[in-house]
Amino acid sequence: MSERFGERTRSALSARGPLCVGVDPHAALLAAWGLTDDAHGVREFGLRTVEAAAGRVGFVKPQVSFFERFGSAGFAALEEVLAAARAADLLVIADAKRGDIGSTMDDYAKAWLTPGSSLEADALTVNPFLGVGALDGSFALAAEHGKGVFVLAATSNPEAAGIQRSITASDETVSAAIIGEVSARNAAASGTGEWGSFGFVVGATVDWAAAGLSPFGPVAPILAPGFGAQGATPADLRLRFGSMADAVIASESRSILSAGPADLATAITARAAEYLEVARA
Amino acid sequence: MSERFGERTRSALSARGPLCVGVDPHAALLAAWGLTDDAHGVREFGLRTVEAAAGRVGFVKPQVSFFERFGSAGFAALEEVLAAARAADLLVIADAKRGDIGSTMDDYAKAWLTPGSSLEADALTVNPFLGVGALDGSFALAAEHGKGVFVLAATSNPEAAGIQRSITASDETVSAAIIGEVSARNAAASGTGEWGSFGFVVGATVDWAAAGLSPFGPVAPILAPGFGAQGATPADLRLRFGSMADAVIASESRSILSAGPADLATAITARAAEYLEVARA
Repeated sequence: MSERFGERTRSALSARGPLCVGVDPHAALLAAWGLTDDAHGVREFGLRTVEAAAGRVGFVKPQVSFFERFGSAGFAALEEVLAAARAADLLVIADAKRGDIGSTMDDYAKAWLTPGSSLEADALTVNPFLGVGALDGSFALAAEHGKGVFVLAATSNPEAAGIQRSITASDETVSAAIIGEVSARNAAASGTGEWGSFGFVVGATVDWAAAGLSPFGPVAPILAPGFGAQGATPADLRLRFGSMADAVIASESRSILSAGPADLATAITARAAEYLEVARA
Repeated sequence: MSERFGERTRSALSARGPLCVGVDPHAALLAAWGLTDDAHGVREFGLRTVEAAAGRVGFVKPQVSFFERFGSAGFAALEEVLAAARAADLLVIADAKRGDIGSTMDDYAKAWLTPGSSLEADALTVNPFLGVGALDGSFALAAEHGKGVFVLAATSNPEAAGIQRSITASDETVSAAIIGEVSARNAAASGTGEWGSFGFVVGATVDWAAAGLSPFGPVAPILAPGFGAQGATPADLRLRFGSMADAVIASESRSILSAGPADLATAITARAAEYLEVARA
Protein backbone atom coordinates (compact mmCIF):
# COMPACT_ATOMS: atom_id res chain seq x y z
CA MET A 1 0.00 0.00 0.00
CA SER A 2 1.14 3.54 -0.72
CA GLU A 3 1.98 5.84 2.16
CA ARG A 4 -1.21 7.22 3.62
CA PHE A 5 -2.43 10.57 2.31
CA GLY A 6 -2.50 12.14 5.77
CA GLU A 7 1.17 11.42 6.26
CA ARG A 8 2.03 12.52 2.73
CA THR A 9 0.28 15.82 3.46
CA ARG A 10 2.12 16.20 6.75
CA SER A 11 5.45 15.76 4.93
CA ALA A 12 4.52 18.20 2.18
CA LEU A 13 3.40 20.84 4.70
CA SER A 14 6.62 20.41 6.60
CA ALA A 15 8.82 20.62 3.51
CA ARG A 16 7.04 23.30 1.49
CA GLY A 17 4.63 25.06 3.82
CA PRO A 18 0.88 25.51 3.61
CA LEU A 19 0.37 27.38 0.33
CA CYS A 20 -1.80 25.59 -2.23
CA VAL A 21 -2.12 27.17 -5.66
CA GLY A 22 -5.64 27.03 -7.08
CA VAL A 23 -5.86 26.24 -10.78
CA ASP A 24 -8.91 28.32 -11.63
CA PRO A 25 -9.10 29.16 -15.32
CA HIS A 26 -12.29 31.14 -15.26
CA ALA A 27 -13.22 33.35 -18.19
CA ALA A 28 -11.93 36.62 -16.72
CA LEU A 29 -8.50 35.15 -15.91
CA LEU A 30 -8.22 33.49 -19.33
CA ALA A 31 -8.80 36.90 -20.90
CA ALA A 32 -6.29 38.56 -18.56
CA TRP A 33 -3.70 35.95 -19.52
CA GLY A 34 -4.37 36.47 -23.25
CA LEU A 35 -5.75 32.95 -23.62
CA THR A 36 -8.79 31.81 -25.55
CA ASP A 37 -11.99 31.01 -23.67
CA ASP A 38 -12.08 27.35 -24.70
CA ALA A 39 -10.57 23.96 -23.87
CA HIS A 40 -7.24 24.99 -25.40
CA GLY A 41 -7.17 28.05 -23.15
CA VAL A 42 -7.86 26.14 -19.93
CA ARG A 43 -5.21 23.55 -20.89
CA GLU A 44 -2.58 26.26 -21.41
CA PHE A 45 -3.61 28.03 -18.23
CA GLY A 46 -3.43 24.83 -16.22
CA LEU A 47 -0.09 23.66 -17.58
CA ARG A 48 1.56 27.05 -17.06
CA THR A 49 0.23 27.25 -13.50
CA VAL A 50 1.54 23.77 -12.73
CA GLU A 51 4.92 24.65 -14.20
CA ALA A 52 5.12 27.77 -12.02
CA ALA A 53 3.99 25.88 -8.91
CA ALA A 54 6.36 22.93 -9.33
CA GLY A 55 9.13 22.97 -6.72
CA ARG A 56 7.74 26.11 -5.09
CA VAL A 57 4.70 24.76 -3.21
CA GLY A 58 3.46 21.39 -2.04
CA PHE A 59 -0.10 21.52 -3.37
CA VAL A 60 -2.21 22.52 -6.34
CA LYS A 61 -6.00 22.49 -6.49
CA PRO A 62 -7.58 22.40 -9.94
CA GLN A 63 -11.16 23.68 -9.85
CA VAL A 64 -13.05 21.13 -11.95
CA SER A 65 -16.01 23.32 -12.95
CA PHE A 66 -13.80 25.62 -15.01
CA PHE A 67 -12.76 22.61 -17.09
CA GLU A 68 -16.17 20.92 -17.09
CA ARG A 69 -17.59 24.03 -18.74
CA PHE A 70 -16.00 22.74 -21.96
CA GLY A 71 -17.34 19.20 -21.67
CA SER A 72 -15.21 16.28 -22.82
CA ALA A 73 -12.65 18.64 -24.38
CA GLY A 74 -12.31 20.43 -21.04
CA PHE A 75 -11.87 17.10 -19.27
CA ALA A 76 -9.17 16.08 -21.73
CA ALA A 77 -7.38 19.34 -20.88
CA LEU A 78 -7.81 18.65 -17.17
CA GLU A 79 -6.35 15.16 -17.58
CA GLU A 80 -3.18 16.70 -19.00
CA VAL A 81 -3.01 19.23 -16.17
CA LEU A 82 -3.50 16.55 -13.50
CA ALA A 83 -0.82 14.33 -15.04
CA ALA A 84 1.65 17.21 -15.31
CA ALA A 85 1.05 18.19 -11.69
CA ARG A 86 1.51 14.66 -10.37
CA ALA A 87 4.63 14.21 -12.51
CA ALA A 88 5.99 17.38 -10.88
CA ASP A 89 5.54 15.82 -7.41
CA LEU A 90 2.82 18.22 -6.43
CA LEU A 91 0.02 16.85 -4.28
CA VAL A 92 -3.05 17.35 -6.44
CA ILE A 93 -6.43 18.09 -4.87
CA ALA A 94 -9.22 17.78 -7.44
CA ASP A 95 -11.79 20.33 -6.30
CA ALA A 96 -14.91 18.67 -7.70
CA LYS A 97 -17.18 18.65 -4.61
CA ARG A 98 -18.84 15.42 -5.72
CA GLY A 99 -21.60 13.95 -3.60
CA ASP A 100 -23.98 11.04 -4.13
CA ILE A 101 -24.86 7.67 -2.58
CA GLY A 102 -23.95 4.02 -2.98
CA SER A 103 -22.39 2.82 -6.23
CA THR A 104 -22.93 6.24 -7.79
CA MET A 105 -20.70 7.93 -5.23
CA ASP A 106 -18.23 5.07 -5.42
CA ASP A 107 -17.81 5.67 -9.14
CA TYR A 108 -16.98 9.33 -8.55
CA ALA A 109 -14.28 8.19 -6.13
CA LYS A 110 -13.03 5.66 -8.68
CA ALA A 111 -12.81 8.34 -11.35
CA TRP A 112 -10.56 10.60 -9.29
CA LEU A 113 -8.75 8.30 -6.85
CA THR A 114 -7.91 5.10 -8.75
CA PRO A 115 -4.26 4.76 -9.74
CA GLY A 116 -4.05 4.81 -13.51
CA SER A 117 -7.40 6.53 -14.02
CA SER A 118 -7.17 9.32 -16.59
CA LEU A 119 -8.43 11.76 -13.95
CA GLU A 120 -6.17 10.47 -11.18
CA ALA A 121 -5.55 13.01 -8.42
CA ASP A 122 -4.14 12.64 -4.90
CA ALA A 123 -7.32 13.78 -3.23
CA LEU A 124 -10.90 14.77 -4.03
CA THR A 125 -13.24 17.26 -2.37
CA VAL A 126 -16.65 15.73 -1.57
CA ASN A 127 -20.04 16.95 -0.39
CA PRO A 128 -21.65 15.29 2.68
CA PHE A 129 -25.26 16.49 2.18
CA LEU A 130 -26.40 12.90 1.53
CA GLY A 131 -24.73 11.80 4.76
CA VAL A 132 -21.16 11.09 5.83
CA GLY A 133 -22.09 7.40 5.74
CA ALA A 134 -22.82 7.71 2.02
CA LEU A 135 -19.11 8.49 1.57
CA ASP A 136 -17.85 5.27 3.20
CA GLY A 137 -17.10 3.63 -0.14
CA SER A 138 -15.02 6.67 -1.07
CA PHE A 139 -13.13 6.58 2.22
CA ALA A 140 -12.37 2.89 1.69
CA LEU A 141 -11.18 3.43 -1.88
CA ALA A 142 -9.02 6.37 -0.82
CA ALA A 143 -7.45 4.40 2.02
CA GLU A 144 -6.74 1.46 -0.27
CA HIS A 145 -4.75 3.62 -2.67
CA GLY A 146 -3.05 6.09 -0.33
CA LYS A 147 -5.39 8.82 -1.51
CA GLY A 148 -7.25 11.52 0.38
CA VAL A 149 -10.76 12.89 0.64
CA PHE A 150 -11.67 16.41 1.80
CA VAL A 151 -15.20 16.62 3.17
CA LEU A 152 -16.96 19.98 3.00
CA ALA A 153 -17.54 20.89 6.64
CA ALA A 154 -17.81 24.65 7.17
CA THR A 155 -17.66 27.15 4.34
CA SER A 156 -17.35 30.87 4.71
CA ASN A 157 -19.91 32.06 2.16
CA PRO A 158 -22.81 33.72 4.02
CA GLU A 159 -25.52 31.63 2.30
CA ALA A 160 -24.06 28.46 3.81
CA ALA A 161 -24.82 29.21 7.45
CA GLY A 162 -28.52 28.29 7.19
CA ILE A 163 -27.79 24.62 6.59
CA GLN A 164 -24.32 24.20 8.06
CA ARG A 165 -25.24 25.74 11.43
CA SER A 166 -28.52 23.89 11.77
CA ILE A 167 -28.68 21.71 14.87
CA THR A 168 -28.62 17.93 14.65
CA ALA A 169 -30.44 15.45 16.87
CA SER A 170 -27.22 15.26 18.93
CA ASP A 171 -27.48 18.99 19.63
CA GLU A 172 -24.43 20.06 17.66
CA THR A 173 -24.11 22.03 14.45
CA VAL A 174 -24.18 20.18 11.15
CA SER A 175 -20.57 21.29 10.61
CA ALA A 176 -19.47 19.88 13.96
CA ALA A 177 -21.36 16.63 13.37
CA ILE A 178 -19.61 16.15 10.02
CA ILE A 179 -16.20 16.69 11.59
CA GLY A 180 -17.10 14.26 14.37
CA GLU A 181 -18.31 11.51 12.03
CA VAL A 182 -15.31 11.81 9.73
CA SER A 183 -12.88 11.99 12.66
CA ALA A 184 -14.24 8.69 13.98
CA ARG A 185 -13.35 7.16 10.60
CA ASN A 186 -9.87 8.68 10.79
CA ALA A 187 -9.42 7.21 14.25
CA ALA A 188 -10.37 3.77 12.93
CA ALA A 189 -8.24 3.94 9.78
CA SER A 190 -5.00 5.59 10.91
CA GLY A 191 -2.22 4.39 13.17
CA THR A 192 -1.50 6.03 16.52
CA GLY A 193 0.07 9.44 16.03
CA GLU A 194 -0.57 9.39 12.30
CA TRP A 195 -2.56 12.07 10.56
CA GLY A 196 -5.92 11.02 9.19
CA SER A 197 -6.35 10.86 5.41
CA PHE A 198 -9.93 12.08 5.45
CA GLY A 199 -9.64 15.82 5.69
CA PHE A 200 -12.00 18.76 5.79
CA VAL A 201 -12.82 21.90 3.87
CA VAL A 202 -13.10 24.77 6.35
CA GLY A 203 -13.16 28.30 4.98
CA ALA A 204 -10.30 30.56 6.07
CA THR A 205 -12.67 33.20 7.38
CA VAL A 206 -15.07 30.85 9.19
CA ASP A 207 -15.77 31.89 12.78
CA TRP A 208 -15.17 28.61 14.61
CA ALA A 209 -17.22 29.51 17.67
CA ALA A 210 -20.22 30.64 15.60
CA ALA A 211 -19.96 27.46 13.50
CA GLY A 212 -19.92 25.35 16.65
CA LEU A 213 -16.42 24.04 15.93
CA SER A 214 -13.54 23.29 18.23
CA PRO A 215 -10.13 21.66 17.72
CA PHE A 216 -10.52 18.00 16.81
CA GLY A 217 -8.55 14.79 16.59
CA PRO A 218 -7.02 12.79 15.08
CA VAL A 219 -5.26 15.59 13.25
CA ALA A 220 -6.32 15.58 9.59
CA PRO A 221 -5.60 17.99 6.75
CA ILE A 222 -7.78 21.11 6.62
CA LEU A 223 -8.17 22.57 3.16
CA ALA A 224 -8.88 26.24 3.70
CA PRO A 225 -10.05 28.30 0.75
CA GLY A 226 -10.49 32.01 1.29
CA PHE A 227 -6.89 33.08 1.68
CA GLY A 228 -5.83 35.87 -0.64
CA ALA A 229 -8.59 37.54 -2.63
CA GLN A 230 -11.27 36.57 -0.13
CA GLY A 231 -9.50 38.41 2.64
CA ALA A 232 -7.54 36.01 4.85
CA THR A 233 -3.78 36.58 5.11
CA PRO A 234 -0.92 34.29 6.15
CA ALA A 235 -1.14 35.82 9.63
CA ASP A 236 -4.69 34.46 9.89
CA LEU A 237 -3.34 30.93 9.82
CA ARG A 238 -2.70 30.93 13.59
CA LEU A 239 -5.33 33.53 14.39
CA ARG A 240 -8.16 31.54 12.80
CA PHE A 241 -7.02 27.95 13.19
CA GLY A 242 -5.23 28.13 16.54
CA SER A 243 -3.85 24.77 17.60
CA MET A 244 -4.89 23.23 14.28
CA ALA A 245 -2.93 25.72 12.17
CA ASP A 246 -0.20 23.19 11.39
CA ALA A 247 -2.75 21.03 9.52
CA VAL A 248 -3.99 23.82 7.27
CA ILE A 249 -3.51 23.85 3.51
CA ALA A 250 -4.03 27.50 2.60
CA SER A 251 -5.55 27.76 -0.84
CA GLU A 252 -5.15 30.90 -2.93
CA SER A 253 -6.29 31.35 -6.49
CA ARG A 254 -7.13 34.75 -7.90
CA SER A 255 -4.68 36.63 -5.67
CA ILE A 256 -1.81 34.64 -7.19
CA LEU A 257 -3.14 33.89 -10.67
CA SER A 258 -3.83 37.56 -11.35
CA ALA A 259 -0.05 38.08 -11.46
CA GLY A 260 -0.30 36.73 -15.01
CA PRO A 261 1.78 34.00 -16.63
CA ALA A 262 5.03 35.97 -16.83
CA ASP A 263 5.12 36.89 -13.13
CA LEU A 264 3.40 33.83 -11.72
CA ALA A 265 6.49 31.95 -10.50
CA THR A 266 7.74 35.08 -8.73
CA ALA A 267 4.36 35.65 -7.11
CA ILE A 268 4.19 32.04 -5.91
CA THR A 269 7.73 32.14 -4.52
CA ALA A 270 7.02 35.32 -2.57
CA ARG A 271 3.70 34.17 -1.20
CA ALA A 272 4.99 30.71 -0.28
CA ALA A 273 7.80 32.34 1.72
CA GLU A 274 5.29 34.47 3.65
CA TYR A 275 3.34 31.37 4.63
CA LEU A 276 6.47 29.43 5.55
CA GLU A 277 7.61 32.22 7.81
CA VAL A 278 4.31 32.16 9.68
CA ALA A 279 4.10 28.38 9.75
CA ARG A 280 7.58 28.00 11.20
CA ALA A 281 7.23 30.85 13.69
CA MET B 1 -37.15 32.92 -24.59
CA SER B 2 -37.92 29.20 -24.69
CA GLU B 3 -40.98 27.87 -22.91
CA ARG B 4 -40.22 27.57 -19.21
CA PHE B 5 -38.99 24.21 -17.96
CA GLY B 6 -41.79 23.88 -15.40
CA GLU B 7 -44.40 24.13 -18.11
CA ARG B 8 -42.48 21.80 -20.41
CA THR B 9 -42.40 19.25 -17.60
CA ARG B 10 -46.11 19.68 -16.97
CA SER B 11 -46.82 18.98 -20.66
CA ALA B 12 -44.54 15.94 -20.74
CA LEU B 13 -46.12 14.50 -17.58
CA SER B 14 -49.57 15.02 -19.05
CA ALA B 15 -48.67 13.45 -22.41
CA ARG B 16 -46.44 10.59 -21.35
CA GLY B 17 -46.92 10.07 -17.62
CA PRO B 18 -44.41 10.18 -14.78
CA LEU B 19 -41.91 7.45 -15.67
CA CYS B 20 -38.31 8.61 -16.09
CA VAL B 21 -35.78 6.07 -17.30
CA GLY B 22 -32.44 6.29 -15.53
CA VAL B 23 -29.41 5.87 -17.75
CA ASP B 24 -27.12 4.11 -15.25
CA PRO B 25 -24.37 2.16 -16.97
CA HIS B 26 -22.66 0.82 -13.90
CA ALA B 27 -20.23 -2.05 -14.16
CA ALA B 28 -22.69 -4.82 -13.21
CA LEU B 29 -25.25 -3.72 -15.80
CA LEU B 30 -22.61 -3.33 -18.51
CA ALA B 31 -21.59 -6.94 -17.86
CA ALA B 32 -25.21 -8.12 -17.86
CA TRP B 33 -25.74 -6.39 -21.21
CA GLY B 34 -22.60 -7.99 -22.68
CA LEU B 35 -20.89 -4.62 -23.01
CA THR B 36 -17.31 -3.72 -22.21
CA ASP B 37 -16.53 -1.86 -18.98
CA ASP B 38 -15.14 1.22 -20.73
CA ALA B 39 -16.20 4.41 -22.49
CA HIS B 40 -17.36 2.43 -25.52
CA GLY B 41 -19.57 0.32 -23.28
CA VAL B 42 -21.25 3.27 -21.54
CA ARG B 43 -21.82 4.92 -24.92
CA GLU B 44 -23.54 1.84 -26.31
CA PHE B 45 -25.54 1.39 -23.12
CA GLY B 46 -26.66 5.01 -23.15
CA LEU B 47 -27.61 5.12 -26.84
CA ARG B 48 -29.59 1.87 -26.64
CA THR B 49 -31.43 3.06 -23.54
CA VAL B 50 -32.31 6.35 -25.23
CA GLU B 51 -33.52 4.52 -28.32
CA ALA B 52 -35.76 2.30 -26.20
CA ALA B 53 -37.09 5.26 -24.18
CA ALA B 54 -37.84 7.49 -27.17
CA GLY B 55 -41.56 7.86 -27.74
CA ARG B 56 -42.37 5.70 -24.72
CA VAL B 57 -41.63 8.05 -21.80
CA GLY B 58 -41.19 11.77 -21.31
CA PHE B 59 -37.92 11.78 -19.36
CA VAL B 60 -34.50 10.20 -19.16
CA LYS B 61 -31.95 10.77 -16.41
CA PRO B 62 -28.33 9.96 -17.23
CA GLN B 63 -26.29 9.37 -14.08
CA VAL B 64 -23.11 11.35 -14.70
CA SER B 65 -20.80 9.45 -12.35
CA PHE B 66 -21.03 6.28 -14.44
CA PHE B 67 -19.67 8.23 -17.41
CA GLU B 68 -17.22 10.35 -15.40
CA ARG B 69 -15.55 7.13 -14.26
CA PHE B 70 -13.95 7.02 -17.72
CA GLY B 71 -12.75 10.63 -17.72
CA SER B 72 -12.83 12.64 -20.93
CA ALA B 73 -13.67 9.54 -22.97
CA GLY B 74 -16.66 8.91 -20.72
CA PHE B 75 -17.75 12.52 -21.10
CA ALA B 76 -17.49 12.23 -24.89
CA ALA B 77 -19.79 9.20 -24.68
CA LEU B 78 -22.18 11.14 -22.44
CA GLU B 79 -22.28 14.02 -24.92
CA GLU B 80 -23.49 11.63 -27.61
CA VAL B 81 -26.10 10.17 -25.29
CA LEU B 82 -27.37 13.62 -24.26
CA ALA B 83 -27.58 14.75 -27.89
CA ALA B 84 -29.44 11.60 -28.94
CA ALA B 85 -31.90 11.98 -26.09
CA ARG B 86 -32.63 15.61 -26.83
CA ALA B 87 -32.98 14.85 -30.57
CA ALA B 88 -35.57 12.21 -29.60
CA ASP B 89 -37.63 14.87 -27.79
CA LEU B 90 -36.98 13.38 -24.39
CA LEU B 91 -36.59 15.80 -21.50
CA VAL B 92 -33.07 15.11 -20.28
CA ILE B 93 -32.20 15.48 -16.61
CA ALA B 94 -28.43 15.36 -16.08
CA ASP B 95 -28.03 13.77 -12.66
CA ALA B 96 -24.73 15.33 -11.68
CA LYS B 97 -25.59 16.72 -8.21
CA ARG B 98 -23.17 19.61 -8.65
CA GLY B 99 -22.77 22.11 -5.85
CA ASP B 100 -20.38 25.03 -5.32
CA ILE B 101 -20.45 28.81 -4.89
CA GLY B 102 -20.16 31.95 -7.00
CA SER B 103 -18.54 31.76 -10.42
CA THR B 104 -17.55 28.13 -9.80
CA MET B 105 -21.17 27.04 -9.45
CA ASP B 106 -22.17 29.27 -12.34
CA ASP B 107 -19.74 27.42 -14.59
CA TYR B 108 -21.30 24.07 -13.69
CA ALA B 109 -24.66 25.50 -14.69
CA LYS B 110 -23.15 26.84 -17.91
CA ALA B 111 -21.73 23.42 -18.74
CA TRP B 112 -25.06 21.64 -18.51
CA LEU B 113 -27.70 24.29 -19.22
CA THR B 114 -26.31 26.52 -21.98
CA PRO B 115 -27.88 25.95 -25.40
CA GLY B 116 -25.18 24.64 -27.72
CA SER B 117 -22.91 23.38 -24.93
CA SER B 118 -21.56 19.91 -25.66
CA LEU B 119 -23.12 18.70 -22.39
CA GLU B 120 -26.45 20.46 -22.92
CA ALA B 121 -29.32 18.90 -20.97
CA ASP B 122 -32.79 20.18 -20.13
CA ALA B 123 -32.19 20.17 -16.40
CA LEU B 124 -29.44 19.55 -13.85
CA THR B 125 -29.57 18.13 -10.33
CA VAL B 126 -27.76 20.36 -7.82
CA ASN B 127 -26.65 20.13 -4.19
CA PRO B 128 -27.64 22.93 -1.75
CA PHE B 129 -25.14 22.22 1.04
CA LEU B 130 -23.36 25.52 0.35
CA GLY B 131 -26.69 27.35 0.58
CA VAL B 132 -29.67 27.79 -1.72
CA GLY B 133 -28.44 31.35 -2.29
CA ALA B 134 -25.23 29.95 -3.77
CA LEU B 135 -27.40 28.51 -6.55
CA ASP B 136 -28.92 31.85 -7.60
CA GLY B 137 -26.65 32.16 -10.63
CA SER B 138 -27.76 28.70 -11.72
CA PHE B 139 -31.42 29.57 -11.29
CA ALA B 140 -30.93 32.71 -13.38
CA LEU B 141 -29.11 30.85 -16.13
CA ALA B 142 -31.74 28.11 -16.18
CA ALA B 143 -34.58 30.64 -16.39
CA GLU B 144 -32.86 32.52 -19.19
CA HIS B 145 -32.68 29.41 -21.36
CA GLY B 146 -35.91 27.61 -20.48
CA LYS B 147 -33.94 25.05 -18.49
CA GLY B 148 -34.58 23.43 -15.12
CA VAL B 149 -32.74 22.79 -11.89
CA PHE B 150 -33.57 20.04 -9.39
CA VAL B 151 -32.36 20.86 -5.89
CA LEU B 152 -31.64 17.94 -3.55
CA ALA B 153 -34.15 18.38 -0.74
CA ALA B 154 -34.94 15.09 1.00
CA THR B 155 -33.31 11.81 0.08
CA SER B 156 -34.38 8.40 1.29
CA ASN B 157 -30.99 6.86 2.14
CA PRO B 158 -30.79 6.39 5.92
CA GLU B 159 -27.42 8.18 6.28
CA ALA B 160 -29.01 11.41 5.01
CA ALA B 161 -31.36 12.03 7.91
CA GLY B 162 -28.66 13.37 10.23
CA ILE B 163 -28.09 16.48 8.15
CA GLN B 164 -31.36 16.81 6.25
CA ARG B 165 -33.53 16.64 9.38
CA SER B 166 -31.41 18.99 11.42
CA ILE B 167 -33.27 22.05 12.62
CA THR B 168 -32.57 25.50 11.18
CA ALA B 169 -32.67 28.82 13.02
CA SER B 170 -36.26 29.18 11.72
CA ASP B 171 -37.19 25.96 13.54
CA GLU B 172 -37.84 23.84 10.49
CA THR B 173 -35.95 20.90 9.05
CA VAL B 174 -33.14 21.56 6.59
CA SER B 175 -35.23 19.78 3.94
CA ALA B 176 -38.23 22.02 4.57
CA ALA B 177 -36.07 25.14 4.58
CA ILE B 178 -34.60 24.23 1.20
CA ILE B 179 -38.05 23.71 -0.28
CA GLY B 180 -39.18 27.02 1.18
CA GLU B 181 -36.22 28.98 -0.15
CA VAL B 182 -36.47 27.49 -3.63
CA SER B 183 -40.25 27.91 -3.70
CA ALA B 184 -39.86 31.62 -3.01
CA ARG B 185 -37.67 31.80 -6.10
CA ASN B 186 -40.27 29.90 -8.14
CA ALA B 187 -42.94 32.35 -6.97
CA ALA B 188 -40.80 35.26 -8.12
CA ALA B 189 -39.82 33.72 -11.47
CA SER B 190 -43.02 32.07 -12.72
CA GLY B 191 -46.32 33.48 -13.92
CA THR B 192 -49.55 32.94 -11.99
CA GLY B 193 -50.71 29.35 -12.33
CA GLU B 194 -47.49 28.27 -14.00
CA TRP B 195 -45.33 25.52 -12.61
CA GLY B 196 -41.98 26.57 -11.22
CA SER B 197 -38.86 25.57 -13.14
CA PHE B 198 -36.76 25.02 -10.03
CA GLY B 199 -37.72 21.54 -8.86
CA PHE B 200 -36.70 19.21 -6.08
CA VAL B 201 -35.24 15.79 -5.54
CA VAL B 202 -37.37 13.97 -2.96
CA GLY B 203 -36.85 10.24 -2.55
CA ALA B 204 -39.86 8.05 -3.33
CA THR B 205 -39.73 6.39 0.08
CA VAL B 206 -39.18 9.55 2.15
CA ASP B 207 -41.59 9.86 5.08
CA TRP B 208 -42.83 13.42 4.58
CA ALA B 209 -43.94 13.92 8.18
CA ALA B 210 -40.66 12.66 9.62
CA ALA B 211 -38.76 14.88 7.19
CA GLY B 212 -40.84 17.89 8.25
CA LEU B 213 -42.32 18.31 4.78
CA SER B 214 -45.79 19.33 3.70
CA PRO B 215 -47.32 20.12 0.31
CA PHE B 216 -45.83 23.30 -1.13
CA GLY B 217 -46.43 25.90 -3.78
CA PRO B 218 -45.98 27.03 -6.46
CA VAL B 219 -46.15 23.54 -7.90
CA ALA B 220 -42.74 22.52 -9.20
CA PRO B 221 -41.43 19.24 -10.60
CA ILE B 222 -40.42 16.64 -8.01
CA LEU B 223 -37.81 14.20 -9.22
CA ALA B 224 -38.32 11.05 -7.17
CA PRO B 225 -35.67 8.35 -7.31
CA GLY B 226 -36.39 5.15 -5.43
CA PHE B 227 -39.14 3.72 -7.58
CA GLY B 228 -38.50 0.19 -8.79
CA ALA B 229 -35.50 -1.57 -7.34
CA GLN B 230 -35.49 0.58 -4.19
CA GLY B 231 -39.00 -0.51 -3.32
CA ALA B 232 -41.55 2.15 -4.30
CA THR B 233 -44.24 1.11 -6.79
CA PRO B 234 -46.51 3.12 -9.09
CA ALA B 235 -49.21 2.87 -6.41
CA ASP B 236 -46.93 4.79 -4.05
CA LEU B 237 -47.21 7.84 -6.27
CA ARG B 238 -50.43 8.99 -4.57
CA LEU B 239 -49.74 7.23 -1.29
CA ARG B 240 -46.44 9.00 -0.74
CA PHE B 241 -46.89 12.30 -2.55
CA GLY B 242 -50.60 12.94 -1.93
CA SER B 243 -51.75 16.20 -3.44
CA MET B 244 -48.36 16.72 -5.07
CA ALA B 245 -48.43 13.40 -6.95
CA ASP B 246 -49.19 15.07 -10.28
CA ALA B 247 -45.83 16.87 -10.14
CA VAL B 248 -43.77 13.73 -9.58
CA ILE B 249 -41.26 12.40 -12.08
CA ALA B 250 -40.80 8.76 -11.04
CA SER B 251 -37.28 7.65 -11.77
CA GLU B 252 -36.46 3.95 -12.24
CA SER B 253 -33.14 2.57 -13.28
CA ARG B 254 -32.06 -0.94 -12.35
CA SER B 255 -35.62 -2.34 -12.29
CA ILE B 256 -36.00 -1.43 -15.97
CA LEU B 257 -32.42 -1.66 -17.22
CA SER B 258 -32.04 -5.21 -15.88
CA ALA B 259 -34.46 -6.32 -18.62
CA GLY B 260 -31.43 -6.17 -20.90
CA PRO B 261 -31.12 -4.50 -24.29
CA ALA B 262 -33.38 -6.90 -26.20
CA ASP B 263 -36.34 -6.55 -23.84
CA LEU B 264 -35.82 -2.97 -22.75
CA ALA B 265 -38.43 -1.31 -24.95
CA THR B 266 -41.05 -3.85 -23.88
CA ALA B 267 -40.18 -3.31 -20.21
CA ILE B 268 -40.41 0.47 -20.58
CA THR B 269 -43.75 0.29 -22.41
CA ALA B 270 -45.25 -1.94 -19.72
CA ARG B 271 -43.96 0.11 -16.81
CA ALA B 272 -44.94 3.43 -18.38
CA ALA B 273 -48.48 2.12 -18.80
CA GLU B 274 -48.66 1.18 -15.11
CA TYR B 275 -47.67 4.70 -14.10
CA LEU B 276 -50.05 6.31 -16.56
CA GLU B 277 -52.93 4.28 -15.20
CA VAL B 278 -52.19 5.45 -11.67
CA ALA B 279 -51.51 9.04 -12.71
CA ARG B 280 -54.79 9.32 -14.62
CA ALA B 281 -56.88 7.55 -11.99
